[in-house]
Parts: sequence; structure tokens; C-alpha cells
Amino acid sequence: MIQSLLSDKGAQFFIMYASSRDPNFYYATRFRIPDPAFYMIGDDGTELLVVHEMEKKRAERESRVREIASLNDLGYYEKIREGVKPKEALVETVIELLKTHHARKVLVPEEFPAFLYERIAEHISVEVVENPYSDMRAVKTGKEIEHIAETSRAIIEAFEHFLKLLRKDRDSDSLRMAVESYLYGKGYLAEDTIIAGGKRSADPHYIGHGEIKGHVIFDLFPKNRTTGYYSDFTRTVIIEESQEVKEMLSTCIEAKSKAIEMVREGVSAGDVHNAVCDVIESYGYSTLRQKAREGFIHSTGHGVGLEVHEKPRVYEGGDELKAGMVITIEPGLYYEDVGGVRVEDTVVVKKGGCEILTKYDDWVRLVR
Amino acid sequence: MIQSLLSDKGAQFFIMYASSRDPNFYYATRFRIPDPAFYMIGDDGTELLVVHEMEKKRAERESRVREIASLNDLGYYEKIREGVKPKEALVETVIELLKTHHARKVLVPEEFPAFLYERIAEHISVEVVENPYSDMRAVKTGKEIEHIAETSRAIIEAFEHFLKLLRKDRDSDSLRMAVESYLYGKGYLAEDTIIAGGKRSADPHYIGHGEIKGHVIFDLFPKNRTTGYYSDFTRTVIIEESQEVKEMLSTCIEAKSKAIEMVREGVSAGDVHNAVCDVIESYGYSTLRQKAREGFIHSTGHGVGLEVHEKPRVYEGGDELKAGMVITIEPGLYYEDVGGVRVEDTVVVKKGGCEILTKYDDWVRLVR
Repeated sequence: MIQSLLSDKGAQFFIMYASSRDPNFYYATRFRIPDPAFYMIGDDGTELLVVHEMEKKRAERESRVREIASLNDLGYYEKIREGVKPKEALVETVIELLKTHHARKVLVPEEFPAFLYERIAEHISVEVVENPYSDMRAVKTGKEIEHIAETSRAIIEAFEHFLKLLRKDRDSDSLRMAVESYLYGKGYLAEDTIIAGGKRSADPHYIGHGEIKGHVIFDLFPKNRTTGYYSDFTRTVIIEESQEVKEMLSTCIEAKSKAIEMVREGVSAGDVHNAVCDVIESYGYSTLRQKAREGFIHSTGHGVGLEVHEKPRVYEGGDELKAGMVITIEPGLYYEDVGGVRVEDTVVVKKGGCEILTKYDDWVRLVR
Repeated sequence: MIQSLLSDKGAQFFIMYASSRDPNFYYATRFRIPDPAFYMIGDDGTELLVVHEMEKKRAERESRVREIASLNDLGYYEKIREGVKPKEALVETVIELLKTHHARKVLVPEEFPAFLYERIAEHISVEVVENPYSDMRAVKTGKEIEHIAETSRAIIEAFEHFLKLLRKDRDSDSLRMAVESYLYGKGYLAEDTIIAGGKRSADPHYIGHGEIKGHVIFDLFPKNRTTGYYSDFTRTVIIEESQEVKEMLSTCIEAKSKAIEMVREGVSAGDVHNAVCDVIESYGYSTLRQKAREGFIHSTGHGVGLEVHEKPRVYEGGDELKAGMVITIEPGLYYEDVGGVRVEDTVVVKKGGCEILTKYDDWVRLVR
């Protein structure tokens, strides 16, 4: 895919300068590194990872990239010894490296840092492109799916733990701390877990504070600290019965089922979103495609992997689903005078259907 | 400081496009936001933060920046409705905003994304500069120092917890998990905590795996999940007495004391580093300034704040220390046939001296 992009653009290399905090860099290299390193892939598919001397042995052991060079190997330290400042020495080393490889044009991702872009562009033609690894990441390998399934199992355990705690504790902040600590002890990092009760849950981004009354949205999306893979799951727990909440939730559950029935290779993500809107509108609720400000005011879902939000989008104009994609289906309804409800599963797209990774009852009532 | 930089460079604005994961963006705006937002500060000191409509109210409530605009206010959604793609609509909105403010030249930080740099530069003169907020962050306010002191106290508690566990548990990985979970439950995020025993600790970046024998380097640098401020602390715990380890550790402790005695406003960080090297070399150990590959092979320290490594560097050529800087002093010695030892404190630079935020005995032996 990168080779065909390079060929289309008449470029010889795609390059990145990033740390493993950048999921595209981590995906390309499978190398964890806190400080930025330089990566290049050529139109013949050969790759090179350039790290500081100190990281070279570890990169040779751990990275997926076969060819590793240290900055030292490329003449960086001679420049430093001559009194060139580190950033300038890096810039010069990279430009020399590209010239040595006869680069006449290179592609850089949108997030490529300006200081390197500017200087490289003085010597070589540079074109900014959407990072091609973002597209490649959308379709997962079997191993990646197993990582996401593993995180999904941890989510379900944490949700059951939450339900036990909820019998005695109704404070959003203390529940969040308890759930996130529980997961941390099992090797997962969860942040901004939504435990939002009452009317303020009508804001889909409100994470919840203080005492929970009536019902509560529980939306958990941790990542495994070793593998780096996320999963994403939401249930709305009914604490006190309310006809309005029950009807909203029933609609979301039906919309989710409808979407999950549809999801398979070859179906358009835009059609899935529209089917969800159809169900929701059929019960008289409003949606974003009607330009409503209340009701179903977000997309149906998104890809999940090394980021909690990644490609594909399950929304108007969304692309065709492919086997191996992992996506969320998360219809919700939000009204200021009632609050919000949402149900969400993470599913794997397959040839003839999909597999739910976060299986759990859709209706959850607090058992006292 | 930014105003004088703008004036020196003949530019009207310094701009950033980043999320609060970028410590400079968070420092400038004091606004937590997971997706990138646009920030500008003018040569008259006026600032503007541009966020998505959904975040506007929260930005008005939470950000330090007084003037907030939504992309909507600036015509972004009209472009989207006309079918312009989101990234292109953002680019056009930003360029129009800069033109409306009569920008002829803007400064951008080194990490500014290439896609925006390239397009703005078609209309307005753009110069890449080292982010001026990186320098401003080096000198802390009283409140920031209190945040770092708070994290320091949590570190000492976690170290005492570790020492208790070490009586029964000698596995680096299980100890790391226990220490990091303990801190997580108290509201701190610690990652890659170094619990490195035996000879492999001769690699200063080795975090430690498997059974600990002889002695162990404990290096903990968590951040408070609410305030975002780090602190940094290392002790070497002796489990079985060894003459070589004891002499190396004694040298590091003496070097640390010497440095802490020197640290005060007006002293050069480079001189502090050289004094540490002098002590270490006086005992016959080698240092990086002698181009050694074993011995004291890293810098004396670094600033600590919203990042665990930030300005100033306490190293050859380091700048003059100023009151309010928070730095680490962390001499270490690393030999492949013995392993590594290191002691580290985080201190606040003051007028006549410095204050240690991570007070604890330098000599720590395991009590069984």
C-alpha cells in the first residue's frame, strides 16, 4: 500500500520522525521508544530505523524493522563534536541520509514536525500526505484481534466489579477511581472512564461527578499496558425505573442489534449508521442527520486498536467495511430534561457477519 | 518573553496546534483537551484559543485563556456544509483567522504539524522556533512547586511500600506492578518504573525483569493524574553486601551531596555537572567527559515539571540556574561486571541554596 502510494506520487520514500506515542510509528516499527526516532520506507519496500546509539541494540532485538542504524553510524556525533547543536546535527544527518539514498521526493505525514519539514524541503521535494499507516491499521491481523479480545475480557470483569460496588457506592468519582485502579492492577490503563448519572449525562462527553441518581452510563475504554491495544464498551445501568429512560434505552438496544446484524465485509459503514438513525427516528427520536441538537447526536461508531478512536468511521459517508476491521457500535440518546443513555459493543467485521468481543446483557438493572 | 521574541523576529503571532498531551499547549492554556486545538498569542499579549463548538463552554470555564472562539464562530461549519473536507476546512479557517488579524509573519514551534505549516506558509511568512513555552516552563510558580512537592511525598510513601514488599518479593516485574498499582490508587500514574537488580542494571535504561540479586536500583517518576506534575527519585537498595557496590554508591552519594551544596540561583548547571564528574573521577571512576563508555555515562540531571525531562539540562554547557527551577541531581555509576548504582533527588533552586523535595536516607539496606 505504501509502495503504491509512493509510486502514484512519484516519491522514493515515506518518512516519519516520531516516538512510539505516535501509534503509526509504533505500528510501523513495533518499537517502544520515548523520544522521537527516524523511520523511512522506500518504493522497493526496504525500511530503515535510525535511533540513538544507546537504543541500537534494543532496536535490533525488539523492532520489526530489520535494518537499524544509529545516528552515530551516520555521522551525527562528528557534527556534535565539531560544535553543531543537537537539533541541527539531526537535520543535517537526515538530509545527508536521504541524499545518499538518492531521494528526489519524499512523502511525510500531516503531523510531521515543521522544523524537519522546512529544512528537508530546501533540498528535496516534500509532499504532505495523510499517514498511510492510519489506513493500514484499520484492518487488524489475527494477533491484533486477540489483543483487543483480551482487553474486552478485562472490561467485562471490570464492569462486573463495578456492579458489585454500585450496590453500596453511588459516587461517580470514587467508583471511577475504584474501577480504574482495579484494571491498573491487572495491567490495563483506563482514563476518563465515563460513570455519568442523572440529567448531566445528556452531555455525551461528561465523565460524571458526585452522586448518581436514576440511571448511570458506564463507558470504559482501557488499553492493555503491555500490548497497547484498546477495547470500548458501554452499558446504561438502571437504578430506579423510569418510563422515559426505559424507552430510550430500548430504542438504542434495538438500533445496536440492527447494526450488528448488518455488519459484515462489503457493507458500507455509512449504511450501518443510516440504519441506526432509521431505527431511532422510527420511535420519534431525532438524529444528527436531521441536524438535531438533542437525540442521537454522535456517530454510530469508530475503529478501535492502538488508539481508542481510529479508522474506520461508522458515520455518514463511511467507507466499505473489510474483514478484520474492529469497530464499535454505540447508539445513544441525549435529552437535557432526562439525561443520556447509550449501549456500545466492540465487534470484529467478518466475511458473513461480525463477532461481538464485549458480550454482555444489554439490559442491566442494579440488584440490591 | 513571547512578546520580546515576536518583536525580535518581526512577527505578529506565535501559534500552536496541539492537544493537552503537548505540555507546552497545556501550560499555555491550562485546558485539557484530547484532540488538537488552535492557540495564538499576539505581540500585544492578547491570546485566542479556538476549539470545536462542543468544547467551547468547557474552555470558557476551565482555560486560562480569556478569549475563546469555536471553529463554528469562524466559519468552519459553513465550509463543511459546502462539502469541504474537515482538515481542509480547518486549514482555511486558520488562514482566514490569521489574515483577519493582519498577520504578516507568524512563529511556529518545531513540532508544529507539517500540513498546517505548509499551507500557512503559502499566505504568510512562517518561522520555526524552539517553543518559547519550553523556556518559560523551566522556572516554576509557587503553585507548581507545591504540585511537584505533593508528587514527591507520594514517591516517598511508595518507596517505603516497596521496601516492605521487597522483604518477601524479589521479582522486578511483580514489584513494579505492585508499586505502580499502589500509586495509581492514590491518583498517580507511574510508568516504566526502574526496579533493576544485578549486573543488567549496568544499562541505565534497563527497567528490570525477573529475580533481583545483590542490589537493586529503584527509580520512580510518577505524575499526579489531576495536576499533571511529575517528580523523580532514585535509591539503590543493598540486599547483599558487596565491597564494589558499596564503594560505587558511596562515591555517588558524595557527588550528589557536593552538587546539592552548590545548587543555588546564579550557579551554572554546567559547573554543577563538572563538580559531580570531579568527585567521581577523584575516586578513579570514569565519566562521559573523558569519553568513557562505562562509569558515569549520563548527565547529572534535568528539569522536572509537566514532563519528567524538561529544561534546564544539568550537563556540560548547561545554563545558569534560576530561583524556582526544579531539577534532579542523579549521579550514577555503571560497570558491566558489577551492575549499576544511582542516587537521585528532585530539588528546588532558591536564592541562597536549594530545597530537597524527595528527602530520604541515601544509604538503604534491606531489613529482613
